Amino acid sequence: MDNVCGTSRIAGCSFSIYPMADKFKEIILDALNQVDTSKVWMETDDVTTLVRGRIPHVFDVTSAIFLAAAKTDEHIVFNGTYSIGCPGDSTGDVYMAEDETKLNMSNIKDIRLETASKFSLYPLGGGNYMDTIYTQIENMRAQGITVSKSHYSTRLDGNAYDVFAGLEHVFIETEASGSSHTVMTVTMSANSPSAKGAIQ
Amino acid sequence: MDNVCGTSRIAGCSFSIYPMADKFKEIILDALNQVDTSKVWMETDDVTTLVRGRIPHVFDVTSAIFLAAAKTDEHIVFNGTYSIGCPGDSTGDVYMAEDETKLNMSNIKDIRLETASKFSLYPLGGGNYMDTIYTQIENMRAQGITVSKSHYSTRLDGNAYDVFAGLEHVFIETEASGSSHTVMTVTMSANSPSAKGAIQ
Repeated sequence: MDNVCGTSRIAGCSFSIYPMADKFKEIILDALNQVDTSKVWMETDDVTTLVRGRIPHVFDVTSAIFLAAAKTDEHIVFNGTYSIGCPGDSTGDVYMAEDETKLNMSNIKDIRLETASKFSLYPLGGGNYMDTIYTQIENMRAQGITVSKSHYSTRLDGNAYDVFAGLEHVFIETEASGSSHTVMTVTMSANSPSAKGAIQ
Repeated sequence: MDNVCGTSRIAGCSFSIYPMADKFKEIILDALNQVDTSKVWMETDDVTTLVRGRIPHVFDVTSAIFLAAAKTDEHIVFNGTYSIGCPGDSTGDVYMAEDETKLNMSNIKDIRLETASKFSLYPLGGGNYMDTIYTQIENMRAQGITVSKSHYSTRLDGNAYDVFAGLEHVFIETEASGSSHTVMTVTMSANSPSAKGAIQ
């Protein structure tokens, strides 16, 4: 099964934005409204929002929604599961004919927002997956993101846009290295009152 | 690499509780304080809380903290990554000498709380992982949990305690079936104003 392409090259993300605020619903809806999602298929229910399409647009839309929510200065957490090549996935619910131009990049690339994240990479179906994981953790470090070790995930500290760019790069590189089915989970926190330390 | 035991049988979870409320910090701290965590190693920072120990205690503590937070009737989301057998994991930060008696079960087993969840199972390092996933989704259904298909995860609807019991069973069964390194991600939502439908 190693390095065989999956049945689908549709990328996608199942994600949520968690505003730690009484007005959470308004913050989520405002953020969704501020982002151009016309190059992805998208569906929101009470547990998650699904985005499917080409890799650049999936990262563009998810990072833009997080940044739109974080602009409120409330404590916001993004949690997302990025995936490509799942053999059990269906082929519908997607727009794949779009070009690579990211629709939201000009609105978000100059936003500076310090964030603390954890991410985990799961290249499925092959035996040498740990080598891929270690390579991609170093890949993240090489892009200037502050990387530190934890249990079950790797911690990333840095500017939101840069961290998302690093995550997109790692996701693409993992696929390019031959992983047929790649999953990457990301939790990103902004405006935390307990940033850089334990909750007091 | 198939079916070889990992270097460690320490189970663990990296999780967070997200209260969608201005008083999120108080809710999190109150929940942590209400739960007996003496049979697990635990550490909280600004991104995540780590729990490590034997499987029953990892599930006991994580489900009890979520239920303690949800008692506030605020919209609360739990997000956790359960893991066992990661070849890259360290062996410390754990109490493994404890017996199997769950310390918090008597406080939580009678709480009725309708929840909506998504879960994904990642048996790593082997080629027949999709069969394991499909088997365990059926396993969840056989335990009376309402199971529905989605992209990148499986949706579960049911009483919080029952869903956690089902997840623990699936996690144990996946390991018992020969998966050397198993990861399971869970997002559970309670008290959502948009339960069972799209956000309006």
